[in-house]
Amino acid sequence: MVDKLIKAIIDKQNPSVAGIDTSLQYLPDEIKNSVKTFEEASEAIYQFNVTLIDGLKDVVPAVKVQVAYYEMYGEAGMIAFKKTCEYAKKCGLIVIADCKRNDIGSTASCYANAYLGSTKVGEDDLEAFPADFLTVNGYLGTDGIKPFTDKTGKGIYVLVKTSNPSSGELQDLKLENGNTVYEQMGEFVEKWGSESIGEYGYSNVGAVVGATYKEQAERLRSRMPHTFFLVPGYGAQGGTAEDLSVCFDDKGLGAIVNSSRGIICAYKKDKYAHLGVAEAAKAAALDMKEDILNALKARGIQKIGG
Amino acid sequence: MVDKLIKAIIDKQNPSVAGIDTSLQYLPDEIKNSVKTFEEASEAIYQFNVTLIDGLKDVVPAVKVQVAYYEMYGEAGMIAFKKTCEYAKKCGLIVIADCKRNDIGSTASCYANAYLGSTKVGEDDLEAFPADFLTVNGYLGTDGIKPFTDKTGKGIYVLVKTSNPSSGELQDLKLENGNTVYEQMGEFVEKWGSESIGEYGYSNVGAVVGATYKEQAERLRSRMPHTFFLVPGYGAQGGTAEDLSVCFDDKGLGAIVNSSRGIICAYKKDKYAHLGVAEAAKAAALDMKEDILNALKARGIQKIGG
Repeated sequence: MVDKLIKAIIDKQNPSVAGIDTSLQYLPDEIKNSVKTFEEASEAIYQFNVTLIDGLKDVVPAVKVQVAYYEMYGEAGMIAFKKTCEYAKKCGLIVIADCKRNDIGSTASCYANAYLGSTKVGEDDLEAFPADFLTVNGYLGTDGIKPFTDKTGKGIYVLVKTSNPSSGELQDLKLENGNTVYEQMGEFVEKWGSESIGEYGYSNVGAVVGATYKEQAERLRSRMPHTFFLVPGYGAQGGTAEDLSVCFDDKGLGAIVNSSRGIICAYKKDKYAHLGVAEAAKAAALDMKEDILNALKARGIQKIGG
Repeated sequence: MVDKLIKAIIDKQNPSVAGIDTSLQYLPDEIKNSVKTFEEASEAIYQFNVTLIDGLKDVVPAVKVQVAYYEMYGEAGMIAFKKTCEYAKKCGLIVIADCKRNDIGSTASCYANAYLGSTKVGEDDLEAFPADFLTVNGYLGTDGIKPFTDKTGKGIYVLVKTSNPSSGELQDLKLENGNTVYEQMGEFVEKWGSESIGEYGYSNVGAVVGATYKEQAERLRSRMPHTFFLVPGYGAQGGTAEDLSVCFDDKGLGAIVNSSRGIICAYKKDKYAHLGVAEAAKAAALDMKEDILNALKARGIQKIGG
């Protein structure tokens, strides 16, 4: 799956992913104020997502759909989540389900069924919320990860160094073996990925590495040569293209950068206010792409993929 | 919320919780083989859960509903999850949603809305999957936890030392400050709970501590005097009542022990095979209660709550 993602990144010369983390609050007032139930809210969110994806599909290689923004609207929200993933796939986009799931082996298998595989019912294997990648939390160790990686061909991103202000409380602590906790998690991730390395040298077991911690990202890049990074924290959270450029290798590969609010809510910004929702999202995504490519050029990388 | 749980434990003299982690595979063959869609499977699971809860409601103070077993049936599964939580509440049981959610602050707020709070739609605040407690993963630190604890009166259980075989890979590593990672997480949990300590001396921020690691559980019990433990790993995973008795304080409080398969699948065991599903679950829950109370008696604790 990582090869498919890398090919799409090279094709579009764009190592960024649009985060479709659509809260009702992000929708235009006239829509937001007209809905009264979870069903109405979820359908409005889905329709808004369709508009976003229509605007974005020729620009970005992938979308990241944050399930928390759908779970809070109950089962109706989960229908909107599923339909959003399906619509993005139909448009040729790769779908990262951002669910940060984690549990002991038997239960992790259920999550793997839900997002990366299928569930047996009668004679059939049915798909619940089919995605191409899933974010997961590695606190439980190998047997909480294996069910996800054992699913043929799909990929995961394990939380290594997260973008939030308090991520360092645990993650930056130093272990007796010399690693910080996040470096140790990085070592596990390299190991978990060692059996699924593809043609570009990266594995199906990726890492979440926040754009907001440049120094740590740089260290992880050099220590995790086979791990593709999913990089949150650009834009609204404060990470700059220059900060996160250290997440890329010398060919401009090795990372995909997420922006959510910056793209979803672009239509509300003065700069894009003359455009509709789809065109504003597209313009913001193009600006983001240019910003990242410029930062890569400053590193001497003229073209993604070499 | 922790006080309500402790009162229920004392009332029923039972510090155990039934895990309603109902896979379709656990249902009687005639039901399992008759369903063909996620909707049929989910409704069958819900009806089975109703039978279980009817059998258990006079014996256990709480149920733990593991969402992964529902997510794998898509949105229909999430309806079964919600209805199961609602039915258990209607029967007077406390509901622990076992979802192990985790994310950065803004997104953690969405999860908190989904499981412990409500979501604003129009003029109304609507509940998505209302539970009394939620399990969470603390890898992201304080700002990933605060949205859950800020929800008035509800509780969380943070993963500290999990019950699975590989839990030690990260959790048992020693930090330079002398703590292991799980002890460090335990310290965070004590701190996060310090503002919500109730009348029994325990806070609304609990910890998941596996029954399968006696030595670690014992250490955590002495280091986390205000933290209530949710203890998985009894029975099918290998934890014994004697092992997990160290999770309790001198009044027999401080912990609630989960069993899932041992109760859900009791009707398949020779010992309970003469009983129906509900009666078998009840008998297994009563046996578990007796087993734990006997282990507490061996520690000199005659009555829970002193």
